[in-house]
Amino acid sequence: MQGTPQPTSPPTAYTPTDRTVPTRSAQRASYDKDVVHAILDDGFVCHLGFVRDGAPVVLPTLYARSGERLYLHGSTGSRPLRMTGQADPGLAVCVTVTHVDGLVLARSAFHHSINYRSVVVHGVAHQVTDPEEKRLALDSLVDQVVSGRSRDARPANGKESAATAVIRLDLDEVSAKIRTGGVNDEPEDLALPHWAGVVPLHKGYGTPVPDPDLAPGTELPDYLAAL
Amino acid sequence: MQGTPQPTSPPTAYTPTDRTVPTRSAQRASYDKDVVHAILDDGFVCHLGFVRDGAPVVLPTLYARSGERLYLHGSTGSRPLRMTGQADPGLAVCVTVTHVDGLVLARSAFHHSINYRSVVVHGVAHQVTDPEEKRLALDSLVDQVVSGRSRDARPANGKESAATAVIRLDLDEVSAKIRTGGVNDEPEDLALPHWAGVVPLHKGYGTPVPDPDLAPGTELPDYLAAL
Repeated sequence: MQGTPQPTSPPTAYTPTDRTVPTRSAQRASYDKDVVHAILDDGFVCHLGFVRDGAPVVLPTLYARSGERLYLHGSTGSRPLRMTGQADPGLAVCVTVTHVDGLVLARSAFHHSINYRSVVVHGVAHQVTDPEEKRLALDSLVDQVVSGRSRDARPANGKESAATAVIRLDLDEVSAKIRTGGVNDEPEDLALPHWAGVVPLHKGYGTPVPDPDLAPGTELPDYLAAL
Repeated sequence: MQGTPQPTSPPTAYTPTDRTVPTRSAQRASYDKDVVHAILDDGFVCHLGFVRDGAPVVLPTLYARSGERLYLHGSTGSRPLRMTGQADPGLAVCVTVTHVDGLVLARSAFHHSINYRSVVVHGVAHQVTDPEEKRLALDSLVDQVVSGRSRDARPANGKESAATAVIRLDLDEVSAKIRTGGVNDEPEDLALPHWAGVVPLHKGYGTPVPDPDLAPGTELPDYLAAL
């Protein structure tokens, strides 16, 4: 007689693999899903890596996170997207998202560093062919750039949707790497006369520049004024 | 009898190749060396792509440009640097640098875009083994982050230099891609009531946070106050 099944919670961390365990600074690595999601949700441009004719290619592109899945944007004519397709087994990719948070200026050149948060996702990307999934993915790509924007734009028509390719990549083999804090100089260097410390970096939004042909009476929406 | 040789100037542009000619938005591509150099000089974090066990890997790392060469920073224990070495023919890499300059919010979801400047470099990276080249490369990596900083820090000693690996990559197969300007909506969408325009993005420096153990009397140097 079997025992009563225990209620199971979804795992809160990704399982480390050979290629998500760093060879150095392992203490900076995290597999916590909340940590990974927060880093992904704080950006909208990733660097997509794939292999073409045996050589690596790295291209910047837009992404959106939807649960445990990433969607990446492209034209159906672009190389990585032509390499995925229904008859295709998928395309091995590596997607990396990086935020630079500060310059760590130590007294010694060797201990100079950068405060950063990055996520690296390994996996096999597939083209999104289901029309409803594609529609939702396109909305999420717009909303990743400006939250709420997809509700304030004309949705893609059939021709536009057909001209846009979306690939998906499951969040499965994933790691974050984070460096925070101050300088780590050698004790014997502390008396050196060089300024040491951290210069914070941040992304800033400028004043929105309206298109000259805005329809009369079109005001700056709240979701942009709040940026 | 041969004619008098004409004085030759160094070429001002990189020669396009099959993999540096984009499959889409070709009008955004540039091979002008000044354009490429300006984009590279405006950053210090690149995304380094290489192939490991047949799969792509993309990692953020520091870089510096020195003339027609990039130097990339790493630990001697890190994977890409262990794959380069004196007995090694080099490591095929793709190095990409991206700046995001603005959000282009069109009336139609389809015409949403990003203003950006990016450079993609393809080539074979080699480890720097000459001590003098390595010393200059380490200085340039520090100065790429903060101009002038290398003169205001203790240089690496022998042990530190040995623990730091530097790889070099010649700027040969290189392209830039740039998107600037405003929205490109369809004429029939101009009367739609959605706000459209560009939200500029910029990188900002926060107030430097001094290390609590600064030597007495150490002032914030001018090259940091100017940031």
